Amino acid sequence: MSRVDGRENNELRKVEIIPNYLMHAEGSVLISIGNTKVICTASIEERVPPFMRGGGKGWITAEYSMLPRATEKRTMRESTKGKVTGRTMEIQRLIGRTLRSVVDLEKMGERTIWIDCDVIQADGGTRTASITGAFVAMVLALQKLVENKKAKILPVTDYLAAISVGVGEEKMPLLDLNYIEDSNAEVDMNVIMTGSLEMVEIQGTGEEATFSRQQLNALLDLAEEGILYLIEAQKKALGPVIENIRKGENL
Amino acid sequence: MSRVDGRENNELRKVEIIPNYLMHAEGSVLISIGNTKVICTASIEERVPPFMRGGGKGWITAEYSMLPRATEKRTMRESTKGKVTGRTMEIQRLIGRTLRSVVDLEKMGERTIWIDCDVIQADGGTRTASITGAFVAMVLALQKLVENKKAKILPVTDYLAAISVGVGEEKMPLLDLNYIEDSNAEVDMNVIMTGSLEMVEIQGTGEEATFSRQQLNALLDLAEEGILYLIEAQKKALGPVIENIRKGENL
Amino acid sequence: MSRVDGRENNELRKVEIIPNYLMHAEGSVLISIGNTKVICTASIEERVPPFMRGGGKGWITAEYSMLPRATEKRTMRESTKGKVTGRTMEIQRLIGRTLRSVVDLEKMGERTIWIDCDVIQADGGTRTASITGAFVAMVLALQKLVENKKAKILPVTDYLAAISVGVGEEKMPLLDLNYIEDSNAEVDMNVIMTGSLEMVEIQGTGEEATFSRQQLNALLDLAEEGILYLIEAQKKALGPVIENIRKGENL
Amino acid sequence: MSRVDGRENNELRKVEIIPNYLMHAEGSVLISIGNTKVICTASIEERVPPFMRGGGKGWITAEYSMLPRATEKRTMRESTKGKVTGRTMEIQRLIGRTLRSVVDLEKMGERTIWIDCDVIQADGGTRTASITGAFVAMVLALQKLVENKKAKILPVTDYLAAISVGVGEEKMPLLDLNYIEDSNAEVDMNVIMTGSLEMVEIQGTGEEATFSRQQLNALLDLAEEGILYLIEAQKKALGPVIENIRKGENL
Amino acid sequence: MSRVDGRENNELRKVEIIPNYLMHAEGSVLISIGNTKVICTASIEERVPPFMRGGGKGWITAEYSMLPRATEKRTMRESTKGKVTGRTMEIQRLIGRTLRSVVDLEKMGERTIWIDCDVIQADGGTRTASITGAFVAMVLALQKLVENKKAKILPVTDYLAAISVGVGEEKMPLLDLNYIEDSNAEVDMNVIMTGSLEMVEIQGTGEEATFSRQQLNALLDLAEEGILYLIEAQKKALGPVIENIRKGENL
Amino acid sequence: MSRVDGRENNELRKVEIIPNYLMHAEGSVLISIGNTKVICTASIEERVPPFMRGGGKGWITAEYSMLPRATEKRTMRESTKGKVTGRTMEIQRLIGRTLRSVVDLEKMGERTIWIDCDVIQADGGTRTASITGAFVAMVLALQKLVENKKAKILPVTDYLAAISVGVGEEKMPLLDLNYIEDSNAEVDMNVIMTGSLEMVEIQGTGEEATFSRQQLNALLDLAEEGILYLIEAQKKALGPVIENIRKGENL
Repeated sequence: MSRVDGRENNELRKVEIIPNYLMHAEGSVLISIGNTKVICTASIEERVPPFMRGGGKGWITAEYSMLPRATEKRTMRESTKGKVTGRTMEIQRLIGRTLRSVVDLEKMGERTIWIDCDVIQADGGTRTASITGAFVAMVLALQKLVENKKAKILPVTDYLAAISVGVGEEKMPLLDLNYIEDSNAEVDMNVIMTGSLEMVEIQGTGEEATFSRQQLNALLDLAEEGILYLIEAQKKALGPVIENIRKGENL
Repeated sequence: MSRVDGRENNELRKVEIIPNYLMHAEGSVLISIGNTKVICTASIEERVPPFMRGGGKGWITAEYSMLPRATEKRTMRESTKGKVTGRTMEIQRLIGRTLRSVVDLEKMGERTIWIDCDVIQADGGTRTASITGAFVAMVLALQKLVENKKAKILPVTDYLAAISVGVGEEKMPLLDLNYIEDSNAEVDMNVIMTGSLEMVEIQGTGEEATFSRQQLNALLDLAEEGILYLIEAQKKALGPVIENIRKGENL
Repeated sequence: MSRVDGRENNELRKVEIIPNYLMHAEGSVLISIGNTKVICTASIEERVPPFMRGGGKGWITAEYSMLPRATEKRTMRESTKGKVTGRTMEIQRLIGRTLRSVVDLEKMGERTIWIDCDVIQADGGTRTASITGAFVAMVLALQKLVENKKAKILPVTDYLAAISVGVGEEKMPLLDLNYIEDSNAEVDMNVIMTGSLEMVEIQGTGEEATFSRQQLNALLDLAEEGILYLIEAQKKALGPVIENIRKGENL
Repeated sequence: MSRVDGRENNELRKVEIIPNYLMHAEGSVLISIGNTKVICTASIEERVPPFMRGGGKGWITAEYSMLPRATEKRTMRESTKGKVTGRTMEIQRLIGRTLRSVVDLEKMGERTIWIDCDVIQADGGTRTASITGAFVAMVLALQKLVENKKAKILPVTDYLAAISVGVGEEKMPLLDLNYIEDSNAEVDMNVIMTGSLEMVEIQGTGEEATFSRQQLNALLDLAEEGILYLIEAQKKALGPVIENIRKGENL
Repeated sequence: MSRVDGRENNELRKVEIIPNYLMHAEGSVLISIGNTKVICTASIEERVPPFMRGGGKGWITAEYSMLPRATEKRTMRESTKGKVTGRTMEIQRLIGRTLRSVVDLEKMGERTIWIDCDVIQADGGTRTASITGAFVAMVLALQKLVENKKAKILPVTDYLAAISVGVGEEKMPLLDLNYIEDSNAEVDMNVIMTGSLEMVEIQGTGEEATFSRQQLNALLDLAEEGILYLIEAQKKALGPVIENIRKGENL
Repeated sequence: MSRVDGRENNELRKVEIIPNYLMHAEGSVLISIGNTKVICTASIEERVPPFMRGGGKGWITAEYSMLPRATEKRTMRESTKGKVTGRTMEIQRLIGRTLRSVVDLEKMGERTIWIDCDVIQADGGTRTASITGAFVAMVLALQKLVENKKAKILPVTDYLAAISVGVGEEKMPLLDLNYIEDSNAEVDMNVIMTGSLEMVEIQGTGEEATFSRQQLNALLDLAEEGILYLIEAQKKALGPVIENIRKGENL
C-alpha cells in the first residue's frame, strides 16, 4: 500500500534550501519541501523588546504568514481582516520559542533577530518547513554578526529542524505529510529536534482519534529519521558556516 | 528533596469540583486545583456556525479568559486591549479541540456548545484545570438535552481530563506544577487523556532545555497517575450522570 | 399587591459581602445581592496615568465586565468583539468617578487603584452592587497602604454605596429592582450616596414614561433606606477597619 | 456677584436655531447656544435594526461627534483612534433614548431615524444643545413623512429640550453653564424635560463635592425655567409644524 | 449644449471663503464652491512627529472627513466603522503633501500644523475645495506665528489652489464638476497648482474610458483658468495678509 | 552624466516575467524589474461583491503587500499593526481600477478576479511592476475561463502596463526610477497606459518641487517608450494567448 504521491512511509519529499535568496535581509532562504515553499528571512535589530532592556541578553521572535494564494482556495489576508488568527499566532510563537532553544542569547548580545516566514506555496507541513528554513536564515544572520565583529563566536549551540509525522488511514505511521495526507490523518504530530536528536518540542493531536503510547513511539522513530535528513540539507545550504556551529556546540 | 509546597513528585494538589455553580448556564462548575480556581460553563445554542450548517452535526467551541487580578500582578483585560493574545487563542483552541474528541457530534444534533473558562485565581495549570472542569460542565449541559428529550442518549464516548507535568530542577519529573514550579521548569508538558488512558493531545516544550525520549516516558507515566485521579473527581461531581457516560462508551 | 419575589416595596434582597475573596489582590470581595454576584478587586499600581504625573495626587479607575454566562442568554465577550460596549463604558466611568468622590487623592499618594468588577451572575442591579462591593475592596487595599507604612492615614472620607430604585407597574416606587422588575419598570434610577446620605450621583431615566418631581422624591426616600442598610453590610465586611474610616471623616 | 460672562444665575445664553440648514438631510438645524454650535441632522432610513424587524415599530438612534477643532485644544478624531470614546457613547445613547420618549414609535412606522449631532464649536453644554437641536431636526424629518403620506399623523407626543444646571463657586445654583463654569462646577446636572415639564432623564454628578436633596430641588427649579425658554426657541424654528405637535399630544 | 446647472464649460460655480469661521482654531475658513461646503481649520502644535524631532523643520499634516449627512444618502461614520477608508486616506495624504509644497518648513520652525477639512455638504469637488480652503486656513495660522513673534517671516512661498476637470459626455472638457457631472464623467482629473501656474500634483483617471495626450492638454488649459479664479477668492479672504505672501515668494 | 546604475535616461532596468509561477492560482507570475520582484496572482471567485449582485457584470479587485524584509529596513506587517496603511490602500485601489479599464466586465460574467501583488524584494517602482505583472496574471486567469468554457471570448480589450518616470537632479527626466533615484527625485510620476498608448491614469507629484507643462510632456514621452517595451515583455510571457487579446481589441 503506497502513499498518494508514491512515497514510502518513512520517505521525505524533495528538500531544497536556497541560501541568501533576498538582497536586503541579513539572512534569508527559500526552502522547498515538495510543493511547500517558504521564504524565511532573519533581520537583525540593534535593540531588544522593552521587557528585556538592560539585561544583556538577545531575543529571537518570529512572524509567519501565507500569501493569499499559497493555498488552493484564496485565503483572506490577515491585514485585511485586521487581526491575526489563532493558528498564525500558535505557529509564530512555536517558531520563535524553538529557535531560541539552540541560541546562546547572552553571547548573541542585546539585539533582536526577527524571523519572517512567508509561505508562498502550501502543500502541508508549512510550520515545520518554516522552522527548518528559519534556522538556516538565522544562522546566516548571526554569522554576519561574527563577520562584522559584533559577536566573537557564532552563538548557536546545535542544529534545529522540524518535521511532521502522523497516523494515516489503516493506522500507518507516516513521515512528512503532504496536504492531502494531513487532511486525512487521524493523528497529527509536529516534532522539533536538535542535531543530537533531543526533543525541543512535540505537539501531537488526535484530530479524529486518540493515540496510544506505542503509536507515539512509532511516530517519534520516524521523526528522528526525517530530522537527520533535514539537517543534512541545512548543512549543505550553510556551507562553510557549519564549522562555526561545530564550535558552538560546546557553549 | 521535597517540592515547594511539600508535595511528593507524583502528588496532585487538592482537587474540588462544585457542579451547577451558576444559575443560568446549562452546565457549570467551579473547579479548584490547589489555589487555581476556574469557573467553567457550558451553554447550548440551537444552531451551528455557518460552515457546518445543514450537516446534521453539532459543534463545541471554547473561550478562555482570566480575571485581571487572577494573577499576582494585574493583567490588562483583552477587551481593553481590543485583541485576544496568542496565548489565549492557543488555550481556547486546545480546550475546544480536546472536548470534541470525546463527543459524538452527530448524536449531539445540529447545535453548538459554548464552553467558557474564566480563571478567577491562577496558580499554575489553568489550561489543564479548564479542560478538566469544562468536561464536567459540558456533560451536565448535554445531560439537559437528554432530560429535555432533545437527545436520545448522552453523546459522550469517554471521560477527558488534562494535567501538567514537567521536569523540575535536578531533573526531577513532577506532576501538577504550581506557578512557582512552572516558572522554574526546564520542560513543561500538558497531557490530555481519556478515561481509557489514550492520549488526545500532548504538548511538550523544553523552555530552558531539551528532553530525551526517556524523560518523555517518565513524564507520561506521571500524567497517567494524575489523569486517573482527576477522573475520580469528575465522577464524584457528576453523580448519577456517570451511568449515562458508561452507556456512551459503546457509541 | 406584592413583588415577584414576595418582597415589600422598601425591602432589599439578601446582601452578603465576603472580604478577601481572592489571594493576589490587595483588596477583594465577593458581593451577593440576591442572585446578583460580583467579584470586586482593588489593585494598587505605584504610578499614575501620564496626565497626572508629578502632581502628587493619586487616581482611581475602574473596569467592569460580565462573564459570558452571567446572563440568562450567553453574551459575547467584549474581547472577542474587539471592543467595549457603550453600556460597559458608562458603568466603569460611573464606578471610578463615584469612588474618587470619597477618597482624599492627595493623601493617597501618587499611585493608582485599579478597581475590577466582574459580574459572575446577574439578576439586576449589577452596577450598583459593583459600586457597593468595590468600595469595600478599595478600602481593604488602602488599608494595606497604611499597614505597609505607605500612607499615614486611611484616605477615605466617607462610606459610599449605591442602589437602584424604580417605578414599577401601577406607579409603585420600588427599592432594589431584580432583573424582571427592572425590565418592566417605567422609571429606573440609580442613586449613589455617602454615609451621611449626601448624593454623589443620581441617574434617573424614564424608559417608558416620564416622571414628576413628586415621584423623584418618593424614589429618593426609598434609596436612602437602602443605602443605610448597605453601609451596615459594608461595615460588617470591613470589621476593625471601620475605625480608620471614622478617622478619615474629618479629612 | 455675577457670572464670568455677566449673566444672571437663571439666565440662558443666546439661543438660535436655524432650521433646514443642510440640503440633503430630511431634517436639519444649526443650533447655537452662546458659542456652542451644533449641526443636527435627522435622516430617515426605511428599515429598522435586525432586533426590531417585523414588529411594526420604528426606531430612533443617535450619533454624536465633535470636529477636532471645536475645542480649545485640538482633539484627536475618533476615526483616527479607531474607536469611539466612552464619553461619546454615553452622549449618543442619551440623545437617542430621550428622543424616543416623545415619539410614538408605532405610529412612526417600521423605519429608523438616524440623528447626527456634530459639534462644530464647543463652549459647554454640547450634549444638551444637541438634544434640543436634534428634537427640531427630528420633527422636521417626521413632518416630511406626513407630507409624503408615509405617516398619517406627526407621531410626536410632546416637546423635548435639555439644559445643564450646576452648583458653582460659593454654592450658587447656575443655569446653562459655559465651558469655564462647567470646569469649575462642584455639581453638574443635565436635565431633559418635556413641554409639560415632566422629567425624561436627570443625571447629576458631584464631581468635586456631594449634594443634598435641597440643592437638587434648587437645580431642578432653574432647569424648568431654562426648558420653557428653549421650547419657545424650538417653536419659533418649527413654525407652522407646531400645530401638528399640538395634535400629537393626545396620542 | 449646456451643463446640468446651466454653466459654461469653463465656468466655476460660485466661490465663497469665510475666514476666521471658528473661534478656537489658529486659522479657519468655511469654503463654499456651489453647494459643496467645507470647514477647514489649521491648528498649531508646538512639536513635530517623532521621525522629525530635532531636525529643526516643521511639518504639515491633514485629516479629512465628511459629516454623515453631507451626502445625499447617509454615510456611516468612520469612527463607528473603526477604520478610515482608502478614499479618505488618499485625500488626506494629498492635502498634506500639496500644502507642504508651498511652505518653507525650515522657516516655519519645529512645529506641526494640523489641517482638518470637514465636509458639511457635498456636491462634487470636496477634495479640491478642501485644499483651496485649507490653504487659506493654513496661512491664517502661520500669520499668527508671525504676529506672536514665533516666526520672523510668513513661510509661504506661493499660493496653492486645486480644481477638478473632466471629460463629460460627448467628449466635452469641463471645469469644476458637480456631483452629477462627476458621476457621469469619462475622465476625472484633479489639478493642484501654485499661483505661478506650476503643477504641484495632477491625478487623472479614465474611469470609463482612456484619454489621449491631446485631451490631457485641453483639461490642463481649463484647470489653469479655474486656479487663477480661485486664487483671487483666496486673496479676498486673506485681506492684508497677502502682502506677507508676496514677500515669501522670494524664499 | 550617467545614472547611479549606469543606465541611460530612457533605459528600463532588466525585465523578466515568469508565467505560471505558483501551482494553485488560476493565473500567476513572478515579475522582476531590476531588483524589484513581485509575485502577482489572479484568483477567480464565482461571485461578485454584494453591491454588484444580479447585474450580470464581473468585478476585479486588488490587494498589495510587501514582505517585511522586501525593504532595506524591516517593515512591520500590516496584519500585526491591525490596519492597512494609506499607502497600501492607494496602491491597491490603483491596481484594481486600472486593470478594470481594459476588461469587458460584462463579457467576463458575474464573477470576481482577486489580484494579489506581493512584493518580495523592493527597489523602487513596486506599484508599477505590480500593475504590469498583474495584467499578465489576470489574462492567464481569464484564459482559464475561456478554456473551461465559462467565457466565450477572452474579455480583454487592450494591453495594460505601468511605469514610473521622474525628474532627477539637474532637472533630468528619467525613466524607471530605482529606489535611490526615487528618493532623490524632485518630481515623481506613475503612468499607466494601454497598448495603444492611451492614458488610463497619470499621477504626478512634485515632492520637492513643482513642475511645468513642458516637463510633464517630456516625462510622458519617456513613459511611452517604457510602456511599449514592457508590453513586449508581457507578450513574451503570455505566448500564444496574445492571439486572443488581439481578438478582444474589437470588443
